[in-house]
Amino acid sequence: MSRLVLLFILITLTAASINAKAEDGSRLWLRYEQVSDEEMLEQYRSLLQEVVIQGESETLSIVRHEIQKGLTGLLGHSIPIDKVLSQTQSLIIGTPATSKVVASAGLDESLKAIGDEGFLVTMKKMEGVTHRIIAANTDIGLLYGVFRFLKQLQLHKSIRDLSIESAPRIKHRLLNHWDNLDRSVERGYAGLSLWEWSTLPEYKSPRYVDYARANASIGINGTVLNNVNSDPRMMTEQYLEKASALADIFRPYGIKVYLSANFYAPMRIGGLDTADPLDPEVQQWWKEKVDQIYEHIPDFGGFLVKANSEGQPGPADYGRTHAEGANVLAEALQPHGGILMWRAFVYSADQEDRFREGYDEFVPLDGEFADNVILQVKNGPIDFQPREPFHPLFGALPKTNTMLELQVTQEYFGFSNHLAYMGPLYEEALQSDTYVQGEGSTVAKVIDGDLFDYKHTGIAGVANTGTDRNWTGHPFGQANWYVYGRMAWDHSLTAEKVADEWLRMTFTHDPDFVEPVKSMMMKSREAGVKYRNPLGLTHLYAQGHHYGPAPWTAELSRPDWTAVYYHRADSAGIGFDRTESGSNALEQYQPSVRARFENPETMPEEYLLWFHHLPWDFKLNSGKTLWEELVHRYYEGVTMVEEMQKTWNSVEGLIDQERFDHVQALLEIQKKDALWWRNACVLYFQSLSGKPIPAGLEKPAHSLEYYKKLEHTKHYARF
Amino acid sequence: MSRLVLLFILITLTAASINAKAEDGSRLWLRYEQVSDEEMLEQYRSLLQEVVIQGESETLSIVRHEIQKGLTGLLGHSIPIDKVLSQTQSLIIGTPATSKVVASAGLDESLKAIGDEGFLVTMKKMEGVTHRIIAANTDIGLLYGVFRFLKQLQLHKSIRDLSIESAPRIKHRLLNHWDNLDRSVERGYAGLSLWEWSTLPEYKSPRYVDYARANASIGINGTVLNNVNSDPRMMTEQYLEKASALADIFRPYGIKVYLSANFYAPMRIGGLDTADPLDPEVQQWWKEKVDQIYEHIPDFGGFLVKANSEGQPGPADYGRTHAEGANVLAEALQPHGGILMWRAFVYSADQEDRFREGYDEFVPLDGEFADNVILQVKNGPIDFQPREPFHPLFGALPKTNTMLELQVTQEYFGFSNHLAYMGPLYEEALQSDTYVQGEGSTVAKVIDGDLFDYKHTGIAGVANTGTDRNWTGHPFGQANWYVYGRMAWDHSLTAEKVADEWLRMTFTHDPDFVEPVKSMMMKSREAGVKYRNPLGLTHLYAQGHHYGPAPWTAELSRPDWTAVYYHRADSAGIGFDRTESGSNALEQYQPSVRARFENPETMPEEYLLWFHHLPWDFKLNSGKTLWEELVHRYYEGVTMVEEMQKTWNSVEGLIDQERFDHVQALLEIQKKDALWWRNACVLYFQSLSGKPIPAGLEKPAHSLEYYKKLEHTKHYARF
Repeated sequence: MSRLVLLFILITLTAASINAKAEDGSRLWLRYEQVSDEEMLEQYRSLLQEVVIQGESETLSIVRHEIQKGLTGLLGHSIPIDKVLSQTQSLIIGTPATSKVVASAGLDESLKAIGDEGFLVTMKKMEGVTHRIIAANTDIGLLYGVFRFLKQLQLHKSIRDLSIESAPRIKHRLLNHWDNLDRSVERGYAGLSLWEWSTLPEYKSPRYVDYARANASIGINGTVLNNVNSDPRMMTEQYLEKASALADIFRPYGIKVYLSANFYAPMRIGGLDTADPLDPEVQQWWKEKVDQIYEHIPDFGGFLVKANSEGQPGPADYGRTHAEGANVLAEALQPHGGILMWRAFVYSADQEDRFREGYDEFVPLDGEFADNVILQVKNGPIDFQPREPFHPLFGALPKTNTMLELQVTQEYFGFSNHLAYMGPLYEEALQSDTYVQGEGSTVAKVIDGDLFDYKHTGIAGVANTGTDRNWTGHPFGQANWYVYGRMAWDHSLTAEKVADEWLRMTFTHDPDFVEPVKSMMMKSREAGVKYRNPLGLTHLYAQGHHYGPAPWTAELSRPDWTAVYYHRADSAGIGFDRTESGSNALEQYQPSVRARFENPETMPEEYLLWFHHLPWDFKLNSGKTLWEELVHRYYEGVTMVEEMQKTWNSVEGLIDQERFDHVQALLEIQKKDALWWRNACVLYFQSLSGKPIPAGLEKPAHSLEYYKKLEHTKHYARF
Repeated sequence: MSRLVLLFILITLTAASINAKAEDGSRLWLRYEQVSDEEMLEQYRSLLQEVVIQGESETLSIVRHEIQKGLTGLLGHSIPIDKVLSQTQSLIIGTPATSKVVASAGLDESLKAIGDEGFLVTMKKMEGVTHRIIAANTDIGLLYGVFRFLKQLQLHKSIRDLSIESAPRIKHRLLNHWDNLDRSVERGYAGLSLWEWSTLPEYKSPRYVDYARANASIGINGTVLNNVNSDPRMMTEQYLEKASALADIFRPYGIKVYLSANFYAPMRIGGLDTADPLDPEVQQWWKEKVDQIYEHIPDFGGFLVKANSEGQPGPADYGRTHAEGANVLAEALQPHGGILMWRAFVYSADQEDRFREGYDEFVPLDGEFADNVILQVKNGPIDFQPREPFHPLFGALPKTNTMLELQVTQEYFGFSNHLAYMGPLYEEALQSDTYVQGEGSTVAKVIDGDLFDYKHTGIAGVANTGTDRNWTGHPFGQANWYVYGRMAWDHSLTAEKVADEWLRMTFTHDPDFVEPVKSMMMKSREAGVKYRNPLGLTHLYAQGHHYGPAPWTAELSRPDWTAVYYHRADSAGIGFDRTESGSNALEQYQPSVRARFENPETMPEEYLLWFHHLPWDFKLNSGKTLWEELVHRYYEGVTMVEEMQKTWNSVEGLIDQERFDHVQALLEIQKKDALWWRNACVLYFQSLSGKPIPAGLEKPAHSLEYYKKLEHTKHYARF
């Protein structure tokens, strides 16, 4: 055995032992394991003999570090990084501005097409040698390109022929952190807030870099640090110093910092006696506050505001419109290039149908918002339910920049206890057809500015990250962060493709693992719909925590927080009539969409009870009655979880034991919870329908009273 | 270069790279780095050729795993573990019951002396070969012995001659977790509770094993899982299943699980309409509840109760004494061998001197408690202040088992932001002389049963652990967990010796690091006293969070929660008169102690204002007036922190950068906070004394009004 062979064996063994140690999920999809495909490894090693990077900047230092770390891990040995091109086959990384090699590579035309953040990964023969090139117009573009290039290796794909051109379709790709100043996270289930307010700005936790790096690797370029239910102290000098330290760390990763603003800040921290947006003193206060913020954070991204919603203050408190409120903040931000994201999530207690309210409130204001305002609209009209039809505001605001808000954290999907891959939900939301300019007018095309030529385009995901070592609590929660970022960059991606790459980078390339587990992921969201609220039922959750079932909830301070408000079940039937005979919310959609939904006989059944109140004996496509089908779907939901368990059990030994055990235990919890949901809901609806549980289905283990009691006694820890 | 040399180089390099990666503090003092002292390494390698362990048990599996992990790391190669003794120099590990080799080693006499938990680390020549032996009477004793043996190597001490005999002086050595069911931790500053209630019992986080192992390594043998401000749900079936899963993990590490019990549990979760301890139904309820707990946890340790204290319910609500209340729970536990820890931390709003209350309440009850009750008494009479005189209950309860409660978490020491090594405080508390049986009647001798022959002896530390990757937030917080455990095992240890070993195991053996940093640690608690409350001042904290200063606090719902209650400063003088002319709390001590404290001219000045109200012009030993000395000490506190910074800055490069940077940043925060404390307190007391700040001292940067405002605007994140 030669020394070299011995050396390789040792490095390999050692790498394996490092990995075995570190598989706590903290490395996310950036594990850079040595390539296990021998043929590919050989190809990579032969084609990548040297890396050439010219130029100096904070971002280029990160580029250097990342390509070194990545190649060292993936290839099993380190590769020289040089500033001068030699005669060996190299990887050249640069912008035309700082790299002579790239400037002379004849890429000008291609570079023009990809804008500020895009990149090329291509090849060029120079002096007889073929080199691989990562080129972009900016250093951030290069960093994105480096992550893309490394992914090619992570996925064991050939780099012999490379011709990748990529640019984001949406400009502002944000995470929204619902993080409070005491480090609790509203709807967070993965530990505490990542932001250690009490030790900032002095202490800069290594986790801040890890966070920025992970986001950059999937193209996220903005982060709203604090909860939309915003503590006004966030905008005080003390906290601006802290936010500024974070901004300094995130900046070279291409990530801008944004803050959630409290509409009463002029009173709460400014000492004024009003926050009326038409008051000149208030306007002046916002102007000065924004100027102060930009002194701390020169590239501050802007504000996110939740106004007149769920108890938050807003312009309506002074009889002003949302546009009048938003524009004051927007005008203060405008000279600095900042944007204002104004949430459309508003609903009042006394309306007939919460579904209608966002549309009814904002459509009349179309055209009245400043052009640096973006209206931030949740994917559905209610609130991140497991399945919602698309929000009717998409396509209804030709003169108002409109962005999409998705939820990455699993508020309604079993927290970090349940496996629910959000890819299919995001894909469904993005590909929903508004028909506003005929067939193919998808939500994606609304928000990327294709249909209305918005000045600002954006997308926001409510983050699922926290201090848990694996970032997201459930090991599969990482997939939701990942797929959100990937689709924010390119909304034409399919959930399945993204699941495939995530699994390979996060776990293994073994097809005996990837194929069944991918299939499990793809079904997981639908399973969650079925055991909670099949056939278009909505919001049957116990109030407050939103974890377990409480379809019987009827007495709360607001009717639109009860479950009965949504399902409207009685002895005759079930469902919310949103046709002309009911709230007529359907009128908010284009005629083609209305036509799709208004006939209960022909509409897609997964949305049925969103729009129709129907008798229990209503016949469905399956030939079953509505009652029978409803019960069957609840049972199917449980069966699907059992199948997920079988799938997972079948892959034991193909990945590290630590993550295997974790997922296995969580699936067991998920099965128990699915049974809880199924039994509670079926028994409750049975108490109204008076109909038997269809033959062949096992009886629920306990009585309805038992499950009602469980709502209050079964306690779920908050984090 | 031979292959073997190459191999060693590679292993060494690799080990180094693993360590560089992992220095996030998660490995605590159990890093098992390869021994850097070449001579010692050579000795260890030659004397340890094989390990022989006979017998099988869960604990023995842990013993095997630990010795393998430890020796592999420390020696740089793994050593065969066998069941049969060969002719090579071996390390033999066993009890006489399961190991024939140990049984035949002639250790019977020594083993008799060390009890259930003790161990021997010794040597024996057998058939011409000298072997090292770890022997004990139980498998847990062996585990303790293994950690002790590995420490010998961690500390680079010779194993050529070994003759260690060790047994704990105190029977119950507990951590008290003030952890709530929502995973927040009262007075916790290191993330969330380690107990993931929402995924237990299904998911067993690897952290539970890490926790148990760390505790076993320092001899902690019990853990109270939940907050003394106890949620009654902790004792419901749902949570007992979860607690039982933890108990199963902790058991083979020698750690028993205990629970904090809510005195109203019979009503809150039992459905009774009273919790009167003399009500037979209540007594029966406790009996059944305890039986139920033992079904889940056969070796359940017992209850901890905070009764009639700070709003917690207790027997006084029914006109019953603490003894009447405690005995009902104790009787339910008694048949199972469980103990009841009843806290002496009681004080009511309407008393003249909170100092007196524990003593006045409990001394009359001496002898009335069941013999499986232990009264749990904080080290001082008020509440974990930076310096308190010892609690007068120590030595005053000859007929009541009495244990000591120390605070490991830094509630009054700047949370996890400040460096404050508690070793000197614990040593001071343990070595305080009660004089109850003449000189040398230390608190340590009270609680280890030496003076009164208590049936049960115990010590409790309020834990500082959480989900932070480094367990304790501040990297030096680990030292407090460590020193607590070490002194619980052996109260004769000095704080300095423990600091030395902790530093070597946690950071490095480099004397340029160890010596100055140890000196810094040893002074750190005194620094904290000086910048907060020198000369025996007490409890000048802002209410609620207990982080910053608010000596001006005067208007609260209870006078004994204000600061002015404690310092009693006015234009004439300052201090709390506890002599005969005042509350006469001094009478609770033995005459020798009283004599030590009652004369302000001769008493130890660090306790001065605990016992005396003195004029500002009172002359101290230094020749300065009380006012001058007070101010000087506040300034000294800041200077000491600045010296800590200098010390730390001088060791850069001697340890990993990650932990260096962290501590450096936290010291900067500590300095700012020390200044804040100093300036706020000096300015406030100056507003009463009307005296100038002594010449040569810089003026505070801001006005008193500024610091008063800071109390409310300077916000400290909870975690």
